[in-house]
Amino acid sequence: MSDSPSVPIPGPLLYPLSAEDELNAKFVGLPLHHPSIPTPAAVIDLSVASANCNAMLAAVSALSVSFRAHVKTHKTSQLTRLQVGESSKDVRLIVSTVIEAEQLLPLLHGYILAGATVNVLYGVPLGPSLVSRLVKVAKSLGQGSVTVMIDHVDQLPALQQFKASAGFPAKVFVKVDAGTHRAGVGPSSPQMKGLLYEILSLEGAGDLTFNGYYSHAGHSYDGNSPDDAMSMLELEIDVCKAAASHAPAHAFKEKRVVFSVGASPTALSVQNLQSGKVSGNAAKSLQEAMHLDQASFELELHAGVYALLDMQQVATRARHFDGDPHDAIALTILAEVRSLYPERERPEALVAAGTVALGREKCKDYSGWGVVTPWRFEEGEDVGDRLIVSRISQEHGILAFEHNNHRNLPLKVGQKIRIWPNHACIASSGYGWYLVVDSKSESPDVVKEVWPRWRGW
Amino acid sequence: MSDSPSVPIPGPLLYPLSAEDELNAKFVGLPLHHPSIPTPAAVIDLSVASANCNAMLAAVSALSVSFRAHVKTHKTSQLTRLQVGESSKDVRLIVSTVIEAEQLLPLLHGYILAGATVNVLYGVPLGPSLVSRLVKVAKSLGQGSVTVMIDHVDQLPALQQFKASAGFPAKVFVKVDAGTHRAGVGPSSPQMKGLLYEILSLEGAGDLTFNGYYSHAGHSYDGNSPDDAMSMLELEIDVCKAAASHAPAHAFKEKRVVFSVGASPTALSVQNLQSGKVSGNAAKSLQEAMHLDQASFELELHAGVYALLDMQQVATRARHFDGDPHDAIALTILAEVRSLYPERERPEALVAAGTVALGREKCKDYSGWGVVTPWRFEEGEDVGDRLIVSRISQEHGILAFEHNNHRNLPLKVGQKIRIWPNHACIASSGYGWYLVVDSKSESPDVVKEVWPRWRGW
Repeated sequence: MSDSPSVPIPGPLLYPLSAEDELNAKFVGLPLHHPSIPTPAAVIDLSVASANCNAMLAAVSALSVSFRAHVKTHKTSQLTRLQVGESSKDVRLIVSTVIEAEQLLPLLHGYILAGATVNVLYGVPLGPSLVSRLVKVAKSLGQGSVTVMIDHVDQLPALQQFKASAGFPAKVFVKVDAGTHRAGVGPSSPQMKGLLYEILSLEGAGDLTFNGYYSHAGHSYDGNSPDDAMSMLELEIDVCKAAASHAPAHAFKEKRVVFSVGASPTALSVQNLQSGKVSGNAAKSLQEAMHLDQASFELELHAGVYALLDMQQVATRARHFDGDPHDAIALTILAEVRSLYPERERPEALVAAGTVALGREKCKDYSGWGVVTPWRFEEGEDVGDRLIVSRISQEHGILAFEHNNHRNLPLKVGQKIRIWPNHACIASSGYGWYLVVDSKSESPDVVKEVWPRWRGW
Repeated sequence: MSDSPSVPIPGPLLYPLSAEDELNAKFVGLPLHHPSIPTPAAVIDLSVASANCNAMLAAVSALSVSFRAHVKTHKTSQLTRLQVGESSKDVRLIVSTVIEAEQLLPLLHGYILAGATVNVLYGVPLGPSLVSRLVKVAKSLGQGSVTVMIDHVDQLPALQQFKASAGFPAKVFVKVDAGTHRAGVGPSSPQMKGLLYEILSLEGAGDLTFNGYYSHAGHSYDGNSPDDAMSMLELEIDVCKAAASHAPAHAFKEKRVVFSVGASPTALSVQNLQSGKVSGNAAKSLQEAMHLDQASFELELHAGVYALLDMQQVATRARHFDGDPHDAIALTILAEVRSLYPERERPEALVAAGTVALGREKCKDYSGWGVVTPWRFEEGEDVGDRLIVSRISQEHGILAFEHNNHRNLPLKVGQKIRIWPNHACIASSGYGWYLVVDSKSESPDVVKEVWPRWRGW
């Protein structure tokens, strides 16, 4: 599938991309530790990311549920394609910024040309200032291609503006608060009932197309087991059901209402249902919750970080892994060791990667800002401990053993290391591109491709 | 002073800038709350930033100390010029990434043409992979224009590479650990003595030019008063003196050794010495510490965040302000209110600005990620509380009163607000440009200029 050359690309970009051909010419073929590769750099392991994406596609296919991929973690066309699958005829995406939707246009036109229907959900509650840009995206992709998130009646006038400007209505998800208290309306609150009433009234007037209910258990990141994640997914489904119970029945006469549920931990947990590694009440209970009246309801799973994974996701233990769960993390941060401080009370080293390069996002498993991977460390005695980024400033981090405070660090000035970040979405946000390697290839350290990364708003 | 057109600009940029003319054409003349201004956006108040810069220049001038401006907070030529002063003949800067040094070249060539000497310090300990790019910068600006930071003997071979490649030596600061345990060597450690011995030996061979000692009391951010900050500045000077006491005396025969000291709180504290608002032992003790043997030593103050300020800096109370200290914060984040949740146990609202837009940096004064400014709020009853960003995700934040948990929020869906971020260096890092307004002008809300912002490494 090739991108259509006739696609209208948004005008000169306020947030210009790094030039892909220039990046490829400069970096493809070099090993990651080559001095010509500027560090810090964000590295994606293609085999690992592909495996993560394929596992999710296999799981939703086996369960016969729909899937909607969030692109906010990586912000690239290339990984979006892996999330969706090359031959998908039902492409559903979520973006966290309008600029992501604009940047997706060439890829989505490619899918349309190949016969697919496409839909992009702007995943933050709709603001009036976004209407004109969302209308442009919708007009480019066609009626039904843009869905927005609604959780307050005062957002509804923007939908009327959308309709007036686009000539067709936007699709609408109602955001249901699953207890995270981020965006969303309580499923049984008076506000939910009032909002549904207004939405159905606007749908009657042709000003919107009601698509269904959307929930996201952000607090599933606090879980510690597949059972925790499966229970949280069940909760996500239950709050959608509860919200739907308040809507007038006639609203759904002619179409199926979508329950869109998921967060990476809860979405990862469905892979356990296929693995045969899970038993017990949580799985049984989840399978019952997922069983919907197919004539009236459609279950859609959504997730984003699962494609790359990170220390936070590993810490939820939501998915069973056959080997070391860290081997499924596709994103690492390449950085240079700059100094060693063996004289300190606890031996430390300095790496030129700080808050901008790694993000300052906690992980409940340990008190640090990233974990050094075993990449290119010589085989040797097992010190029974791991190297972590224990403190960070804007552009540098302090490395230390997590527990072993007496042993000198096995590092050299100028050495390149790779770090598993805590939160992939934030760690990658400072980079203009990803260096793509393939750990399953004959030259696992060599840059195979460079993927420019979108940013801005 | 205009930038020289003959300056060699580094080749096609891997991290391209947003186009300044396009940005100006799009945004200049619009009020900040205009729907055509995409949010979130980073806003700089020119009058406030200028006043912050001028106050620092006045203080160092009155004290007859040198000054070195860090540009990592804002990463623009325009604000660098305000930090340095239009007519400076002794331009000293610090960068946190080599790309900042490369982007500074046109501005610095302008200063050189106007008769100034220029020097750029790369502020993170030197890595071998940086030598080729730093040599390019040094060759463009001339001998003596590049200084590097050294805190380990294993960094020294890179200086020999620099000399061999540039044809002249780099200047060297030795980083002294003032107790923050970030970069730096303890002033009286065996490592300091060994490092100084090697450095003096290399200087003898012509492989480097010793510039002096550099200290940064990062823990001054924990201070709570001008006295705290002044004491910390005194500590920064003392550790430089202590380190210098170990160097063989003959090393300094023919030049003055620089003590470069400062962090924004400690540097801000010197402004108190001029204000007449400070008395007591801390001021007297600091003044004594600052009194150096002028024939042998030169005191240089360095700082960066002071130009914009933020909630963290206000929380240190390092500088005396005549009015509300928040009025001296020049950086605000413009964002759109998207939803209201009056039904929650504590009334909340959603703003479309999260970790990427604000940074996840703590402030010791309160538990939130930003404070809503009074901009465009109607005059009304004083609720005795302030609105804060109480929780954040990637692209959204939850607003609430800091203490008053029962009152509904005075916000509307679609309303634009401005937020004081906790840490300006990180909050601004996601933006491609700054919208520049001038609160002292007749149209304080109208965009006067747009300044592209550098990023990357």
